[in-house]
Amino acid sequence: MALARNILRTRTLVGSFRHYSSGTKLLDVSVNDENGFATVTMNRPPVNSLNLEFLTEFCNVLTDLDRNKSRGMILTSSSNKVFSAGLDILEMYKPQPERFKAFWNSLQEAWIKLYGASFPTVAVINGHSPAGGCLLAMSCEYRIMLNKFTIGLNETQLGIVAPPWFIKTMQNTISKRDTELALTTGRLFKTEEALKVGLIDEIASDKAQALSQAEAFLNRFEMIPPIARAYTKTYLRGADIQELQKNREKEVGATLSLVAQPKVQQGLEFYLAMLKNKKEAK
Amino acid sequence: MALARNILRTRTLVGSFRHYSSGTKLLDVSVNDENGFATVTMNRPPVNSLNLEFLTEFCNVLTDLDRNKSRGMILTSSSNKVFSAGLDILEMYKPQPERFKAFWNSLQEAWIKLYGASFPTVAVINGHSPAGGCLLAMSCEYRIMLNKFTIGLNETQLGIVAPPWFIKTMQNTISKRDTELALTTGRLFKTEEALKVGLIDEIASDKAQALSQAEAFLNRFEMIPPIARAYTKTYLRGADIQELQKNREKEVGATLSLVAQPKVQQGLEFYLAMLKNKKEAK
Amino acid sequence: MALARNILRTRTLVGSFRHYSSGTKLLDVSVNDENGFATVTMNRPPVNSLNLEFLTEFCNVLTDLDRNKSRGMILTSSSNKVFSAGLDILEMYKPQPERFKAFWNSLQEAWIKLYGASFPTVAVINGHSPAGGCLLAMSCEYRIMLNKFTIGLNETQLGIVAPPWFIKTMQNTISKRDTELALTTGRLFKTEEALKVGLIDEIASDKAQALSQAEAFLNRFEMIPPIARAYTKTYLRGADIQELQKNREKEVGATLSLVAQPKVQQGLEFYLAMLKNKKEAK
Repeated sequence: MALARNILRTRTLVGSFRHYSSGTKLLDVSVNDENGFATVTMNRPPVNSLNLEFLTEFCNVLTDLDRNKSRGMILTSSSNKVFSAGLDILEMYKPQPERFKAFWNSLQEAWIKLYGASFPTVAVINGHSPAGGCLLAMSCEYRIMLNKFTIGLNETQLGIVAPPWFIKTMQNTISKRDTELALTTGRLFKTEEALKVGLIDEIASDKAQALSQAEAFLNRFEMIPPIARAYTKTYLRGADIQELQKNREKEVGATLSLVAQPKVQQGLEFYLAMLKNKKEAK
Repeated sequence: MALARNILRTRTLVGSFRHYSSGTKLLDVSVNDENGFATVTMNRPPVNSLNLEFLTEFCNVLTDLDRNKSRGMILTSSSNKVFSAGLDILEMYKPQPERFKAFWNSLQEAWIKLYGASFPTVAVINGHSPAGGCLLAMSCEYRIMLNKFTIGLNETQLGIVAPPWFIKTMQNTISKRDTELALTTGRLFKTEEALKVGLIDEIASDKAQALSQAEAFLNRFEMIPPIARAYTKTYLRGADIQELQKNREKEVGATLSLVAQPKVQQGLEFYLAMLKNKKEAK
Repeated sequence: MALARNILRTRTLVGSFRHYSSGTKLLDVSVNDENGFATVTMNRPPVNSLNLEFLTEFCNVLTDLDRNKSRGMILTSSSNKVFSAGLDILEMYKPQPERFKAFWNSLQEAWIKLYGASFPTVAVINGHSPAGGCLLAMSCEYRIMLNKFTIGLNETQLGIVAPPWFIKTMQNTISKRDTELALTTGRLFKTEEALKVGLIDEIASDKAQALSQAEAFLNRFEMIPPIARAYTKTYLRGADIQELQKNREKEVGATLSLVAQPKVQQGLEFYLAMLKNKKEAK
C-alpha cells in the first residue's frame, strides 16, 4: 500500500513552511512537519471578532495554504473562552460606506476561500462560537467542540439578519427544518445540543484531545488523491459559492442599506452599551 | 432586560382587535390581550374542508393579522375529530372552469400568505389532518398534535397528485427521502410516527395543553425584533413562494386539465359515493 | 374495497411476459404472475461491472417493463458476493473516444430510465455495492440489504470523481451533510451503518427473505392508482433528471477529458494491476 500512497497522491514539500505569524499577529499558523497539517490559531483578543484587518489576513493565510498544497487545516482560537464572537459590531455601527464595503467584501472573500478550500478543513471549537464564529466553524468540513460552550447563528437576537449564504451553509450542515427553527429564534446550541442536531461532529474534553481528534479526521484523507477530493468538494459546494459570486456586489450594497436602518443602528447601539457595561463591571 | 425589550421591538397595540368572527362564520379569531397572540379556529363543519369561500375568508384573516402586526397566530379547529380534511372534493368534481380557477387561486393565495406570514405561526392539530389539512399545518412554523390522529399528504391514495409546492413544503419540514416515501405511498402518519419523522414538533394530551404549548412556542420570540425575524423568514421561505408566484396562472390551468381527466373524475366520483354511504350508515 | 381496486387502477395483463433472458444473457428477467412484479437479476460475472453492453441491455429491460406497465421491479444480483462493482474500469482505461462516449451515454440513459421509472422499484442488495453499484441501488425507490456487505460512492478512493447526478441521487437519499462526508472520504458503509444513515431501508438475513421484504414494499402500492403515483414521482425526481438531460452531451465530453488525464489513467492502471494480482493470487 506504500506504493499506492506514492502513486496516487503528490506529497507536498512543507519544509519551507513551518511556523510563522502573520505580519499583524491576528492569526498564528504552524505546520506539523510529520503530517503536513497546518494549525491556524485566531488571535485577536479578547474574542476574535471579525473586522476588516482580521478577515484580510485570514484570506492571505488561506491563499498561502492553497498555494503550498496544504494537506489540511485545523482552525482554532488562542482564547480558552471564545472561538470567535463573529462580526465586529464596530464595523456595522455608524458604518462609513467605503470601509463597510471593504469589510463586507473581505467577509465574502473569507467564506468563499474557506468554504471552497481544496484542502480538508476542521474546526476545533474551544470556546463560544456565535454568529460569524459559527459561520467559520460550519465552513470547515468537520467540527470538534469542547464542552460547556455555545454555537449558533443568533443574528435575529441582535436585530440583524444572517445573510442567505450563512443560511445556506447551515442548511448544508443540519436539516432545513432545524435551520429554520434555529434562525428564526436566533438559537445558540450548547455543545451536546449541537452534536445532537448535527451542527458539530464530535465532542472533546480539552483542547489537546480536540487537536488530536482533528488530526485523526484529516488522516482519513491520507489515501485519497487530492485532485479527486478537490473536484468532489467543488461539485458539493461550488454551486452555493457561485451563487454568492454572482450577487456579490449587489449584496454588499443591500447589506449596507439594511445595517444603516435606524432600528438596526439603535439595536447595535444598545448592544454596544451592554458590552461596555459588562466590561466596566469586571 | 426590560429595557432591551422596549428598545428592540415595537409592541403592537392589540386593544382594538379582540375577538371577532368573520362575516361568514367559517373562521373564528380571538386575540389574547395579555400576549397579543391570535387564535384562529377553523369552523366549517363537519370537517373544515377547504372550498373557495373558506379559503377567501382565511386569506382575509391573514391579511388582517399582518396589518395589525400580530405577535403570533395559533391555527386550530372547532372540531374535536378533524383539523382539516383538506380540499373540498366538490370543488374538483365536475369542475366549472371559472369557479375552479377562482378556487385554486384562493388556495395558492392562502399558502403564500400563511407560509410567508411575517408573524410566527403554530398549528394545534386537534384532529385528523390529511392532504390540504396537512399543508396548512406544515405551512405554520411549528406543529403540536393530539394523540390518536393522522397527518400526511395522502393525495395519491385518492388518485390525485399533491402539487409541487405541497411537496416543497413537506421537503422543508422532513427529509427529501421521507417525503418521497410518504408521497408515493400516500402515507398518513399516526401522531407518534409524525413526531419521529419530524412532521410535527410536540405531542399534547388535550387541546388545552396544546394551546398552552403553542403559546410557549410563540413566547420564544418575545425578545426577537420582529423586523429581523421577518427578513430571516423571507430568506428561508421566500424562494419557494416566488417559485409559485412565477408559475401561478400556468399552474391553475395545468391543475384544471389534470383534475378534469376522466380517470381522476372517476376516482373522485367513487370517493364521493363512499363518503355518502358512510354518512347514510350513521 | 375490491371495487376500489378495480376502479382506481388499471391492472396490466402480464401473461405474455413471464420469464426471459435478454439476448446477451447479461440480465435475467422473471415476472411473478400472481402480483405482476418483475425480478431483474444482473448476471455479468464475476462482479456485474457496468460496461456498454450491460447498460444497453439494462436500458432495454427498463423500456420493456415500462411498455408493459409493470406493477414493480426488484433489482438484484446473481452473485452471492457482489451486487454490482460499478463502472467497468476497462471502459475508462485508455479510452477510445467513440466507445467511451457511447458507454457514458448508456450510463446516463440507464440512470434516467431507472431513476425516473414510472413503476415502483426496489433493490435487493445481496452483495457489495460500491460506486456505480451504489448508484443503481440508490436510484431504486427502496433498498433491502444483506448483512456483511458494503455500499457507498467510493470514487475518490480510486482517484476518480462521482458525477454531479450521482451526488444528487445520494443527497436525495441521505442528508447533504452525510453525503459530503461520505463522498470526500470515499466511504463504504457496512450494512448496519448504511441503515443508520438512511442509505438503505431494511436489512435481511438472506436473499429469500430480502425478496419477500421487497414484495412487501411493492405491495404498499397495491391500492395506489399508478397514474397519480407516476405524476408524483415525476414531481419528486423530474427536476434532477431534466438537469442531466440538459447537460448530457456536455457532460460526456467533460468526463472524457477528466478520465483521460494522466494522473487519473495512472491511478486506474495501478488499480487494474492490483485487481490482476488479486486474481492471480487465488
